[in-house]
Amino acid sequence: MVEDSKMSERTLALVVEYDGTGYHGFARQNGVPSIAERLETALAAVFGHPVDIAVAGRTDAGVHATGQVVSCMTTCTLPERRMAVALSAILRPHRIAVLRVVERAKGFSARFDAKARTYRYRILNRVAPSPLHEHRAFHVSAHLNSEAMRIAAQALVGDHDFAAFCASASREKNTRRHLRRVGFERNGDFLDLVVSADSFVHNMVRIITGTLVEVGRGHRSPALLGDLLASGDRTKAGFTAPAHGLYLEQVEYVPPI
Amino acid sequence: MVEDSKMSERTLALVVEYDGTGYHGFARQNGVPSIAERLETALAAVFGHPVDIAVAGRTDAGVHATGQVVSCMTTCTLPERRMAVALSAILRPHRIAVLRVVERAKGFSARFDAKARTYRYRILNRVAPSPLHEHRAFHVSAHLNSEAMRIAAQALVGDHDFAAFCASASREKNTRRHLRRVGFERNGDFLDLVVSADSFVHNMVRIITGTLVEVGRGHRSPALLGDLLASGDRTKAGFTAPAHGLYLEQVEYVPPI
Repeated sequence: MVEDSKMSERTLALVVEYDGTGYHGFARQNGVPSIAERLETALAAVFGHPVDIAVAGRTDAGVHATGQVVSCMTTCTLPERRMAVALSAILRPHRIAVLRVVERAKGFSARFDAKARTYRYRILNRVAPSPLHEHRAFHVSAHLNSEAMRIAAQALVGDHDFAAFCASASREKNTRRHLRRVGFERNGDFLDLVVSADSFVHNMVRIITGTLVEVGRGHRSPALLGDLLASGDRTKAGFTAPAHGLYLEQVEYVPPI
Repeated sequence: MVEDSKMSERTLALVVEYDGTGYHGFARQNGVPSIAERLETALAAVFGHPVDIAVAGRTDAGVHATGQVVSCMTTCTLPERRMAVALSAILRPHRIAVLRVVERAKGFSARFDAKARTYRYRILNRVAPSPLHEHRAFHVSAHLNSEAMRIAAQALVGDHDFAAFCASASREKNTRRHLRRVGFERNGDFLDLVVSADSFVHNMVRIITGTLVEVGRGHRSPALLGDLLASGDRTKAGFTAPAHGLYLEQVEYVPPI
């Protein structure tokens, strides 16, 4: 049966979870494993044609996702739920799962239509490391004053130039972003930072976390975060917290996915 | 310096976390890796003498622990916190951590002095599996009616003969136990059963979970759990839920550890 591909073309959004351990990041790179390559290979196998994806957040090497969003076009007529099941089965050995597939209006792009991204940075704050959360959280054995971290974080909320919190090797020209919220959640020995913004400069959440950990350890005053932000100087901010504590948790669209 | 070993002998309780994946269980067995063997080897290295441990819960192959308790005696004079740090460093490649070391009165046994044990059974109830919780939760893709499971579970609370929920290969003579509580916790797509009892017959939490999953799927009436318990017949209970969803979470002592 020959279908009219123009008439039956569908635009899809996929919500994706992955374990970033061992990956060189989301984006395709020559000769090393990437999430994008695994996804596009699985999509091509299920859809029966080559697939190009757009992505909401190009996560770095070792960074996880529980709510990454990608979009693509297809002529495949399978129901969305069956696509998710088939893709997850193919991708399971690669530690990737497709949680949901949703059809969107023609022209939808997971990248350009994203209104906001939320990242979670997970810190395990206790003496002993956790074998059950290895590569899933950043282990800080020294005591952290989470109240000081909470106070410091509030200076970052709003419209600011985040140059001080941008990887120095980055070539981003515009480092102005709107940070909507920095929340803190305690779950037993875990302290999670939940950060939402329209978008992020390179390594922004990891540098914010590293800086706040220095505040929590008492090595840096919470009152000076505003000055640090105003300086625009990366060398004055804290260390870059490791990739394995970071999760892309949610991407917002109108209407929601 | 020669110490009088009788005068300086200390009795210690250790709170232990481990990832049970790939282990043949807690107990020593010939020729296969066990948690007990790893712990005793690490303790001997830190203490400088051979060590025999007693354990609160002999977990099966693949079962995890976040609050296992073991006890032992030693002439080692290191402070407790330094012991925990040293042991965790040695045991890290084996996916075992010592969260706390506490000195107890002479004669204390992690096994015989335990007043109650709490296990958590973690179910992931959604269509897609989770790459970030592989080997950490039992994935059930069919919808579970957790309210029916909750109602069914209440029939199990109290003093009962749990023969119907005991592995058929078990050689336990007395299968009477006091089940204190079956709690349910929802965390996003996770449904956790939290079960406390004085002690457990073999596979009891996993058979209770398998039976309640059948209730949650609508394949078994919640009203019949009492009859099933009274029958004492293992063949009438549900399947044995897989080991990788089970965690030994807490062991109670007087005073607490």
